[in-house]
Amino acid sequence: MSNAAKPQTAITPTRADNYQDWYQEVIKAADLAENSDVRGCMVIKPWGYALWENVQRVLDGMFKATGHVNAYFPLFIPVSYLEKEAAHVEGFAKECAVVTHHRLEARDGKLVPVGELEEPLVVRPTSETIIGASFAKWVQSYRDLPLLINQWANVVRWEMRTRLFLRTAEFLWQEGHTAHATSEEAVEETMKMLGVYAEFAEKWMAMPVIQGEKTAGERFPGAVTTYCIEAMMQDRKALQAGTSHFLGQNFAKASDIKFQSDKGQVEHAWTTSWGVSTRLIGGMIMTHADDDGMVCPPRLAPEQVVIIPVVQKPEDRDRVMAYCKALEAELEAQTFAGTPVRVHVDGRDMRGGDKAWQWIKKGAPIRLEIGPRDLEKDAAFMGRRDKGPKEKAGIGRAELVSTIATILQDIQDALYNRALAYRTQFTRTIDTKEEFYAFFADPPKKKESDPTPIHAGFVLAHFNGDPALEAKIKDDLKVTVRCIPIDKAIGGEPGTCPFTGQPSKQRVVWAKSY
Amino acid sequence: MSNAAKPQTAITPTRADNYQDWYQEVIKAADLAENSDVRGCMVIKPWGYALWENVQRVLDGMFKATGHVNAYFPLFIPVSYLEKEAAHVEGFAKECAVVTHHRLEARDGKLVPVGELEEPLVVRPTSETIIGASFAKWVQSYRDLPLLINQWANVVRWEMRTRLFLRTAEFLWQEGHTAHATSEEAVEETMKMLGVYAEFAEKWMAMPVIQGEKTAGERFPGAVTTYCIEAMMQDRKALQAGTSHFLGQNFAKASDIKFQSDKGQVEHAWTTSWGVSTRLIGGMIMTHADDDGMVCPPRLAPEQVVIIPVVQKPEDRDRVMAYCKALEAELEAQTFAGTPVRVHVDGRDMRGGDKAWQWIKKGAPIRLEIGPRDLEKDAAFMGRRDKGPKEKAGIGRAELVSTIATILQDIQDALYNRALAYRTQFTRTIDTKEEFYAFFADPPKKKESDPTPIHAGFVLAHFNGDPALEAKIKDDLKVTVRCIPIDKAIGGEPGTCPFTGQPSKQRVVWAKSY
Repeated sequence: MSNAAKPQTAITPTRADNYQDWYQEVIKAADLAENSDVRGCMVIKPWGYALWENVQRVLDGMFKATGHVNAYFPLFIPVSYLEKEAAHVEGFAKECAVVTHHRLEARDGKLVPVGELEEPLVVRPTSETIIGASFAKWVQSYRDLPLLINQWANVVRWEMRTRLFLRTAEFLWQEGHTAHATSEEAVEETMKMLGVYAEFAEKWMAMPVIQGEKTAGERFPGAVTTYCIEAMMQDRKALQAGTSHFLGQNFAKASDIKFQSDKGQVEHAWTTSWGVSTRLIGGMIMTHADDDGMVCPPRLAPEQVVIIPVVQKPEDRDRVMAYCKALEAELEAQTFAGTPVRVHVDGRDMRGGDKAWQWIKKGAPIRLEIGPRDLEKDAAFMGRRDKGPKEKAGIGRAELVSTIATILQDIQDALYNRALAYRTQFTRTIDTKEEFYAFFADPPKKKESDPTPIHAGFVLAHFNGDPALEAKIKDDLKVTVRCIPIDKAIGGEPGTCPFTGQPSKQRVVWAKSY
Repeated sequence: MSNAAKPQTAITPTRADNYQDWYQEVIKAADLAENSDVRGCMVIKPWGYALWENVQRVLDGMFKATGHVNAYFPLFIPVSYLEKEAAHVEGFAKECAVVTHHRLEARDGKLVPVGELEEPLVVRPTSETIIGASFAKWVQSYRDLPLLINQWANVVRWEMRTRLFLRTAEFLWQEGHTAHATSEEAVEETMKMLGVYAEFAEKWMAMPVIQGEKTAGERFPGAVTTYCIEAMMQDRKALQAGTSHFLGQNFAKASDIKFQSDKGQVEHAWTTSWGVSTRLIGGMIMTHADDDGMVCPPRLAPEQVVIIPVVQKPEDRDRVMAYCKALEAELEAQTFAGTPVRVHVDGRDMRGGDKAWQWIKKGAPIRLEIGPRDLEKDAAFMGRRDKGPKEKAGIGRAELVSTIATILQDIQDALYNRALAYRTQFTRTIDTKEEFYAFFADPPKKKESDPTPIHAGFVLAHFNGDPALEAKIKDDLKVTVRCIPIDKAIGGEPGTCPFTGQPSKQRVVWAKSY
């Protein structure tokens, strides 16, 4: 009986019922991606890929505006390159795709690998080592610095447990790699790109993030310091959505990137690397999607406005379509967030209600339903994806066209504010070990097969910085330090570590994470 | 003495002296790309990659304007997929990168592959089979057709002899894959995309092409018919610059892409595929570059106008730079070929003459040299890359700004017309076997180490279509049928095959090729 009273939702199960299955179902219902037959590799479907194209376009513009240029480096890395940087090998070289042969031969109707390579090649899990080899050739003098390069590419990490967008064997990403004459410049670059990521996440994805530094245990293998942006998902776990690394001279030494300084001395360069990936799409889903499906932030939505002609009588069809097409052109002549408004008229031959639900599930920010009576009123029936599916209102054509950018930004702001309010609601400042452990303890499951519950949230607590303590807490609660926040408004003043009673410089963010 | 009388050129050797070495030197001098330590894999440097980004931007727009959407499919193909289409295996599966292990383990200070895969994976040489597996899931009914997908990706073919951009183990490309309900629709798509490629080559790359069909011997493995665009390089060899394949039902049967027709019958779909790659950059180089370096077609040039401040006295520096910056802004406010004019002020601290030569070698279409006296005249000294390096002329600022798009298009047209005249000059209509063999015979070399001479050109000759005859001619002369031209103005009327005396439907294009 209680089930029957629930409102009907487009996605089954709901977030509350089974968050993980809900995530998969949203991806399926919105036609964003699917698993392939190739272990851990996903197929990114057109609607999902269009989101990624918008991510690429905007970020690429931000990288170029900060002085970076794109280049492209080999997919394969000789195994010997990976042997050069010890910490890097330890962290990365282990689980990866290894190419050992360069030929297939038919034997007994099967193709078998032949032509063994003298040195095996690894499909890049990240490109510090292979790009370092080029940098070593390109950099001779301080005049060649800074070298500010970005690459858009696919990378492969042989993950055992994969999940669409969040963790896949192959994924798409960008990796920035820069070399500088001084440590100060390289640190400044590291922080600048962290800021670019935070701005992109908040302004474009409508996803609030906390910028901070990683503890040693969560650092990029071979980095001196790793910075990150962390966002709260709707199961209240943290998603690391982007990282920016200050690599010191570690990789420059491993790759022999040297330059003659303006004082005539030969020195190793200071390098950085920074990246975001298709994981951002997982972040968008888990920040905004609801029990009716995907919710695309308007600034990145593949289509921002979908016009649905609603025609019962065949004789109405042509004039309704003509009106919709004219409206499409008028809306496309408007600009939102630097590009013409993206409008689609869905003229398919199916029920208008079914079409509307498809676009709700895909997360189009604005739906306009237009039938013969709307033509007479010179108006449309508008549904906004940030509101309920039945909450629709009439709007006159002239007003719609003149305010479309404002409406889209209003939806963008509503999504951001909702996500920020959610994070605020489930972030707790805690000062005792007991409260900390109680906060993060999962409720006991009745059966092992019960779905994982929604988690507790973020905790701001003091911490003495001891790696052994961090490891114990991870072991006890599956909770880690997500970051040491940069913003003093979050990290606060010095205090006392609740686990040890020792002094702590500031609060850190603790959470379960993806 | 005769050497001393030659005009000084920026590239050594010249085209006439050693075409192949000239090609490598242009790439080096223009900073387009370089070989990596990874066998057959190139590094595409920022100036070369910016050319590719412009190719991508324009082609992507053309694909979308013709109804296609982008998606992304796995890098890896299970070996069993390749076993499905017999002709395809024969043509493609042989030389490729094979992944056999998923882990590296340190043993005696070396990393060795462990964790053998149950089924080896091939790094995609092309994606018909892996995309076919997705299409089989996506297509159920005639309502799901046509399915019009494009992918931008890297692919790997284990080539033994590689050359930057023209033939590399890894290269970047786009591959279109479409499925249709009827053979007619699929053929129409095949021809439409061939037309898109031809338009792009001619209008954007300023590279004249001949559109035509491949003979059976040059067909894509598994295709029913392969169409191509062929261009003449400056060594008069042909470059296949793009292909469009009608795959019939071959791949649909191998991948089981079936649909219920509007008459309720289950049928196999009809598919196409089409692609162009980073090879296009090799085509641009070999069509336009000269003995002073690269010549970028203005519509695709990374920078279309380079402003070089020429300052002898330090006290002039600030006002000259201010003038250059203001001019940059004025020029950037102009539009050429649908985008703002791309302008760069080269403010580096080095001799103006050295800078000018660098930009000549990089192929920037327009150089503007501006010194203190030019400020007084409110003018610049303009050099166009389609003219000699010393051929410069003054132009007033107002005229320059108001006609910049016209000047750029004028350079674009000049490059196209020059390339077309070159092709016309070295294309011969031949009607006897003797003349054909004499035309293509290379002059005898004095030493084996002598560079390959510039070749003879294209021949339009009748042909009875016999594959054995084509193979013999290839064996004798290294000459093949580049295509059976579609344009009747090139292919002409039926006639007699000069090799056999048998009837021939039309003339075909014979040439040596890359």
